[in-house]
Amino acid sequence: MSRHRYLCHVRFSDVDVYGHVNNVKYFENFQEARLAFILALAGDDPGTGLRQVVARIDVDYKRPILFRPEPYLIETWVTHVGTSSYALDARIVDEQAASTVYSTAQVRLVAFDPGTQRSRPLSSEERSRLEQALADAVPA
Amino acid sequence: MSRHRYLCHVRFSDVDVYGHVNNVKYFENFQEARLAFILALAGDDPGTGLRQVVARIDVDYKRPILFRPEPYLIETWVTHVGTSSYALDARIVDEQAASTVYSTAQVRLVAFDPGTQRSRPLSSEERSRLEQALADAVPA
Amino acid sequence: MSRHRYLCHVRFSDVDVYGHVNNVKYFENFQEARLAFILALAGDDPGTGLRQVVARIDVDYKRPILFRPEPYLIETWVTHVGTSSYALDARIVDEQAASTVYSTAQVRLVAFDPGTQRSRPLSSEERSRLEQALADAVPA
Amino acid sequence: MSRHRYLCHVRFSDVDVYGHVNNVKYFENFQEARLAFILALAGDDPGTGLRQVVARIDVDYKRPILFRPEPYLIETWVTHVGTSSYALDARIVDEQAASTVYSTAQVRLVAFDPGTQRSRPLSSEERSRLEQALADAVPA
Repeated sequence: MSRHRYLCHVRFSDVDVYGHVNNVKYFENFQEARLAFILALAGDDPGTGLRQVVARIDVDYKRPILFRPEPYLIETWVTHVGTSSYALDARIVDEQAASTVYSTAQVRLVAFDPGTQRSRPLSSEERSRLEQALADAVPA
Repeated sequence: MSRHRYLCHVRFSDVDVYGHVNNVKYFENFQEARLAFILALAGDDPGTGLRQVVARIDVDYKRPILFRPEPYLIETWVTHVGTSSYALDARIVDEQAASTVYSTAQVRLVAFDPGTQRSRPLSSEERSRLEQALADAVPA
Repeated sequence: MSRHRYLCHVRFSDVDVYGHVNNVKYFENFQEARLAFILALAGDDPGTGLRQVVARIDVDYKRPILFRPEPYLIETWVTHVGTSSYALDARIVDEQAASTVYSTAQVRLVAFDPGTQRSRPLSSEERSRLEQALADAVPA
Repeated sequence: MSRHRYLCHVRFSDVDVYGHVNNVKYFENFQEARLAFILALAGDDPGTGLRQVVARIDVDYKRPILFRPEPYLIETWVTHVGTSSYALDARIVDEQAASTVYSTAQVRLVAFDPGTQRSRPLSSEERSRLEQALADAVPA
């Protein structure tokens, strides 16, 4: 995969009093896309836990998202692989017209050891998959 | 007010499968605090619409928030006043121990004209209130 | 249409600490299906506002709904048309195996006049569409 | 306790495009009140798991709930204790004027054994606490 593609089905419940998908729901939808990406990355190796926590999220709002039956498209890709962390970029676009960008996000994730409740180095398997994904990522 | 104080009542519905308040709900709670701040800022002048849109939100996650009956405290304050935009910082802390910081956020808001659907300069009344709030903000 | 079909895409955000879609989210998903049904019913006649409020919802929980990429199916159909109200039944089933029922719901809706903030009689156009949908509904 | 009292803090995020707290959020808020009630019932005996699942919820909508800083009040009380299930009633009222009822709910809960994933009889400790609560419940 070059960029992971997630179809985002907006709900009426995502819409606030201004008639737009609420700012908070952009994060929820980015999260859904990110989880689908991480599951796809783990692929056939369930041992590749990719167990992690989110350290930071930055979101830019570019234009309002409206409730409609047709899904939006969220693209997610790897932009950096560190020792114990990695970074993703994502954006919400129109499926028919990817040049229409609704929002962009940068996310930093840290590999996490549930036992010690502390960060840990990425395993070699995790690193290998993330670096492959990084190499595959195509600039917009 | 120096820093606006908002009591954040965590809901069981905010908790995800990992037993922590989900990342997305940090944004929801920051949003609730921000709206309370903006309402307090508008004060007795309903004409001070402070009509605006969020342009960008950055959130750092520092430690997990757990479901509990006692509220958390969200502090919000002004860090910058521009021509047509302003910036807020906010943080989620423990009400009893403000040195325990769960998350911090930076938000940039843009004054917005619903008629033209475009940004607009801050009115002199808005600017005055925001600059007063900026002057009142006390560094941590 | 005999029964309206809505594909329900479960989100990770719908899952609670027990690893199942939370009870509350059943209602959210029933609501999404109901709105899609009402939009389909109004069809090409935007004047058919079908402006209404929910008076009562009853939900039975039959088995847990799990997070998965494949959507669930929500069927919605008309069971009664009154003077100023009507009733819908709905159920969440497996798309591949409609005999696997996760939840059923009964909803009573009341036609509503936003001007007077009171109930109103169904218009003849609304009644006609609802009675057609009632006639089309096929028992399980 | 006669009726359990839960202060319900409405969020801006609960409000839909019609400017009212969305129907779905009534359920979320009833759920929050119910969990607080069950925790209070278990009291000092953490062994009283009161581990259960919701079998059915019926909700009547009586008037719109608006976003405001002051909390609403949700009362919850036991109406029936069976062999392996029990029933609760709840209602959302105004804290200052309990005669203003926004919504009422009836909930049936079933004692559940996570090991077998099946219903189980209420333990004698659970029954004792529920029957005390039933005896304490005061009719409106």
